[in-house]
Amino acid sequence: MLIDGVATRTVRADPAAGLIEVLDQTALPHQVRWVVVDTLAAAAHAITTMQVRGAPLIGATAAYGMAVAAGRDASDAGLHAAAATLAATRPTAVNLSWALHRMLGRLLAEPLPDRAIWAWREADAIAEHDVAASTAIGAHGEPLLRRLRPPAGRPASVLTHCNAGWLATVDRGTALAPVYAATDAGLELHVWVSETRPRNQGLLTAWELDQQGVPCTVIADNACGELIRSGQVDAVLVGADRIAANGDVANKIGTYLKALACVDAGIPCYVLAPASTIDIGSLTGAAIPIEERDGDELRVVHGLDAAGEASSVRQLAAEVPVYNPAFDVTPARLITAIVTEHGVAPATTDGVSRLMRGPA
Amino acid sequence: MLIDGVATRTVRADPAAGLIEVLDQTALPHQVRWVVVDTLAAAAHAITTMQVRGAPLIGATAAYGMAVAAGRDASDAGLHAAAATLAATRPTAVNLSWALHRMLGRLLAEPLPDRAIWAWREADAIAEHDVAASTAIGAHGEPLLRRLRPPAGRPASVLTHCNAGWLATVDRGTALAPVYAATDAGLELHVWVSETRPRNQGLLTAWELDQQGVPCTVIADNACGELIRSGQVDAVLVGADRIAANGDVANKIGTYLKALACVDAGIPCYVLAPASTIDIGSLTGAAIPIEERDGDELRVVHGLDAAGEASSVRQLAAEVPVYNPAFDVTPARLITAIVTEHGVAPATTDGVSRLMRGPA
Repeated sequence: MLIDGVATRTVRADPAAGLIEVLDQTALPHQVRWVVVDTLAAAAHAITTMQVRGAPLIGATAAYGMAVAAGRDASDAGLHAAAATLAATRPTAVNLSWALHRMLGRLLAEPLPDRAIWAWREADAIAEHDVAASTAIGAHGEPLLRRLRPPAGRPASVLTHCNAGWLATVDRGTALAPVYAATDAGLELHVWVSETRPRNQGLLTAWELDQQGVPCTVIADNACGELIRSGQVDAVLVGADRIAANGDVANKIGTYLKALACVDAGIPCYVLAPASTIDIGSLTGAAIPIEERDGDELRVVHGLDAAGEASSVRQLAAEVPVYNPAFDVTPARLITAIVTEHGVAPATTDGVSRLMRGPA
Repeated sequence: MLIDGVATRTVRADPAAGLIEVLDQTALPHQVRWVVVDTLAAAAHAITTMQVRGAPLIGATAAYGMAVAAGRDASDAGLHAAAATLAATRPTAVNLSWALHRMLGRLLAEPLPDRAIWAWREADAIAEHDVAASTAIGAHGEPLLRRLRPPAGRPASVLTHCNAGWLATVDRGTALAPVYAATDAGLELHVWVSETRPRNQGLLTAWELDQQGVPCTVIADNACGELIRSGQVDAVLVGADRIAANGDVANKIGTYLKALACVDAGIPCYVLAPASTIDIGSLTGAAIPIEERDGDELRVVHGLDAAGEASSVRQLAAEVPVYNPAFDVTPARLITAIVTEHGVAPATTDGVSRLMRGPA
C-alpha cells in the first residue's frame, strides 16, 4: 500500500542484518516513523506497546521475532523460550500462537546450524501468506460491496471499527481489503470510521484511507448506532482477533454494539479475517481470553500540542477507577457472514469449518 | 448536593445584583470554577459552550437568562428578543423552550414595571420546580433499584451514559437521582460510567459520584456492550433531552447502542427526566431535531498537562472530515420504562401522557 504515494509494507525484513523494521503505529497518524527490531525483547516490546497491532500483523511480527531470536540462540530451549516470550505479549489474537507454532514446528525439524536461515525464510513465508490471504479476502469481499444498494444521491457507504486495514496486516488489510479492491476497480465508496476509544485506532484508519485516496469521515464510537439506524450506512465491515468454532467473534471492544445496530437496522455485518484467526479450540466465544489493558489508556490522551509536537493530556486522575477490556465477543447470530481467504460463509460451525480450508 | 463536602447547587441566583453564578462544567473535573452570568449574551454563551449542560439545567439557566435580560429591557419586544436568543442556543433539549415559554407567558401578563422582579421570582420557581422534580424522580426510581437482583458476590450495578446527575440539573439529578436516594438510604450500589465521547461528560459523572461517595468505574463507550452482555450490569439509567409523544427518546449520542444491548441481554433500560422533557408536539423521535456540533470536539481533547495546568492536544488534523451529532433517538420499543416526577410508566403514547400529568 502507499505512504505519501510510495508503495510499502508495515514490516520490512533485513535477514543479512538480522533485524526487521516496523512502522511505529503509536506515532501515527502524526508521524511516519520506523522502529528497528533487532532483539527478541524489542519484538515483544513492539507487540505489547502496540507499535505493531492488528491480529495478522501481530502474527507476522512474532514470526520475524522468532527469526531475530534464532540468530542468537537457535537451540530447542532457545526457540521454546523465545516463543514463550512472544506468546505472552497479548492474549486475544490467535494469529500470534498460530505463527509461533508454525515457526517452532518448522525450525525444530531442522538441524541446528540451518535453523537461523530457515527462520527468516519461514517468517517471510508467513508474511507472504498474509499478503496473499488479504488479497484473497479483498477479492471475495468485493462482490459484497458491489451488491450494496445505497439510496439515490450518495455512494455506497460502509462503516468500519478500529483498524483492520493494511496497517493491521503486512499489506492490503482484512476488513478494508474489499474496499481497496472495489475502489481500485472504480467503485465509488465512502467509509465511516469510528474513533475506537480508548486507543483511537480509527485515526489510523482515517490516515490509511486518506493515503489510498478513499473518502472517509471520522465519527465518535457513540455515533455509530444513530448513523446505522438512520440509514446512512449500508454495511459494517470489521476484522477479528479470534473466531471461535461456532462463529462467535472476538474483535476490538465495541464491535458487538455495531453488530447489534446492524441487526436492528437490517443491514449486513461482515467479519473479514485470515483463516489463521480461526481457533477451533475455542468452541464458543466464552472460551476466548479477553485482554484487559491499563486504565491509563483512558486516563491519558495522546496527540500534538500547539507547536505540532507529540504531547498528551490527562483527562482522568490516576486514582479514578477504570476498567479497560480491549476486546469483546460478538455472538455468531449477529454476524451476516465471515470472509477468509477461502471464501464467504455464514457464522456457523459448518461455515467456520469451510472457511478454514476452502471449498472441499 | 456536595462539592468538597459543602452543599451547593449548579446555579446560584443573586437578584439584587442582577446576575447568576453557574458552575463551569468545561473546567470540571479538574477545577471547580464559577462563572458570572450578568448579561443575556453571557447566558447564551454559557449554554452554547456547555459551561452549563444537561436538559433540565439548560432550562433553568435559560429562565435566569430571561431574568438577567429583563433587568435591562423588559418590554414585550425585549423579552421576545431575549427568548429568541436563548432558544437558538441549542436545538434538541426541549426543556429550554419549555422554560422560555413559561417565562414569557408569566412576564408578558405583568405590567412593565413589575416584570424584572417577577422574572427573578419565576426563574426561582422554575429552579425549585426542577429540584422538586429531581427529588420525586429519585423517589419513584429508588424501588426500581431495590428490585435489582445482582449475582451473589457483588452489589447491584447500574450503567449510566453521559451526565444525568446533579450537574445536569439544579440539584439531585435525573438518572442519578434514584442512585442518590437509594445510597442515602443505605443500599450498596456501583455505577459504571461511560466516557461519553466526544465531550467526555462521563468524567463529570465520575467526579460527581465521587463527591457523593458513590463507588463508580469509568469505561470506554465501546465497553458498554461487553459489560452488559457478560452480566456485569443490572440496569441502564439514562436521562433525556426530549421525549416524543410515542415514547421515543432523544438523549446523548450513544444511548441507542446501550438500549440495544439491554434488550439483547434482557436487563432493564430506564429513562429518567422531568415532565418538562416531554414534547407532545413531536409525535415520534423522527420529529426531534438532532444538534450537530463542531468536529473539533473529536479532533481536540482537553485535559491537564504534566504540570497540572489546563491543556489540550490535537488528535486529528483540521482537514480530516468529522461528523459529530450530539444526540441520538432511542426507539420506544427498546425502553423498559420512563420515570418523571409523576411516576413510572411504559414508553407508550398512553404512558407518556400519564407521565406529563401524573395519575388521573
